[in-house]
Amino acid sequence: VISGVGLIGGSLAAALRHRFPNCRIIGVGRSAERLQKAVDAGLLDDCSTSLSSRFPADSLGVVCLPVHRIADAAIELFQSGCSAVTDAGSVKSSICMTLAERGHKSFVGAHPIAGSEHRGFEHAEPDLFAGHTCIVTPVEAEAAAVHRVHALWQAVGMKVVQLSPAEHDAVLASTSHLPHVLASIAAASVPERLLPFTGNGYRDTTRIAAGDASIWVSILLENGPEILKALDGAVGMLQQFRDAIALQDAARLERLWEVGARVRRQLPSVHPGD
Amino acid sequence: VISGVGLIGGSLAAALRHRFPNCRIIGVGRSAERLQKAVDAGLLDDCSTSLSSRFPADSLGVVCLPVHRIADAAIELFQSGCSAVTDAGSVKSSICMTLAERGHKSFVGAHPIAGSEHRGFEHAEPDLFAGHTCIVTPVEAEAAAVHRVHALWQAVGMKVVQLSPAEHDAVLASTSHLPHVLASIAAASVPERLLPFTGNGYRDTTRIAAGDASIWVSILLENGPEILKALDGAVGMLQQFRDAIALQDAARLERLWEVGARVRRQLPSVHPGD
Repeated sequence: VISGVGLIGGSLAAALRHRFPNCRIIGVGRSAERLQKAVDAGLLDDCSTSLSSRFPADSLGVVCLPVHRIADAAIELFQSGCSAVTDAGSVKSSICMTLAERGHKSFVGAHPIAGSEHRGFEHAEPDLFAGHTCIVTPVEAEAAAVHRVHALWQAVGMKVVQLSPAEHDAVLASTSHLPHVLASIAAASVPERLLPFTGNGYRDTTRIAAGDASIWVSILLENGPEILKALDGAVGMLQQFRDAIALQDAARLERLWEVGARVRRQLPSVHPGD
Repeated sequence: VISGVGLIGGSLAAALRHRFPNCRIIGVGRSAERLQKAVDAGLLDDCSTSLSSRFPADSLGVVCLPVHRIADAAIELFQSGCSAVTDAGSVKSSICMTLAERGHKSFVGAHPIAGSEHRGFEHAEPDLFAGHTCIVTPVEAEAAAVHRVHALWQAVGMKVVQLSPAEHDAVLASTSHLPHVLASIAAASVPERLLPFTGNGYRDTTRIAAGDASIWVSILLENGPEILKALDGAVGMLQQFRDAIALQDAARLERLWEVGARVRRQLPSVHPGD
């Protein structure tokens, strides 16, 4: 049962469909029209907009919604008969703690680190997850549910790594959330009339700044404390660049530049496909 | 006469070769071996490593070197018989003022805003410049030289815009130099062991951070005052993000996000090919 059939939910459906033709996939959402289109596109077997649905016994639920809607949607999936539930949110502590406090020991939070700038199941790709890392963050969860959620994300080609929700949120603050804020600032620093004077560097650095505000505001707020630490680190580094430039200190500036360059040059060996 | 036959110089040679088969192209550089390879690859008709070369009468020189080497190389091209010289550097005031002070009224600085993360003439592309903007920044230059330099960059498909060197440097500080610093900081914020937890967002935002330190240190130092202003603006915006997150102010955070998102969503209409 996939709650939220957008790019991520749709790609999960496509990936499962591709690998397990007999797997029955049910989509849950707010728009009957959109869900029916996903059925017509062959991504779903069935769909529902009702909060009081009853799903087949032992269904596995996956919530693929913006982070501020995940906890409620996960609880609804349990109420509708799912025996285990996971999600695909970019923040984990707030969600996992809410589910743990409610006693849902078959909820196993997850963050498949895959995506694109596109939205909607029309851009669904069965190989979106393949080769990428999925972080799962169980909190006092039952072993059977943990096993099942590991198996789900592995089945669509992901390398599954287990962290605590707090560890996840600290890591993602620097690997994803900070780059989004910096991209937004880089984009905002150019008034529209000067866009003809941008090149490929601006284009790539700011691509993710065009993302949906509602998704990113939720993430930045729900992972607030960790993101504030990451922002403070970035301000510190900006200050170091500032000092080196003001002092016209070439050696110091080169050392600063090389910190990022060295890390970035390692990336192709980690994500060979990219 | 192209001084510096790397990605930019090589692409200029390829673009001219493609459009004007009878144009005679001479490469100047430090490595006879590399220049001979560019001749063998069909990019150049001839090459020279000598500072005391004599080029054919009325030659047009183009310096495609890192910014800190451009002024000296331009002066050498005049001494070797070029009757007009332009360049392709990302900073203009320091270069154009040096040439103007020396009385070279046939130097017309230029910045073709095109490039890629690759280096070396092996990656030369005849269409690298097509459809992009070239800023030319004449300072008390002779009309004939200005006309000739405009024609050169237009001939390889560029839209030519004239600005003063100071205007150029202020614009590029925000459209190019600031994004490079922010990309470098985003890259440096992730320790190498956490690279498996990065996604497409980190990859794109940090791509230009892998660039050559010697090129970027020169640019950041030569355009110091304008880049310091741009960095101060970025610190101010980081502070605003910080405040909105600390106050958990969703409306304010959404307004901040939308500033960058609105600008970035306009980009495809400016660079349709990208």
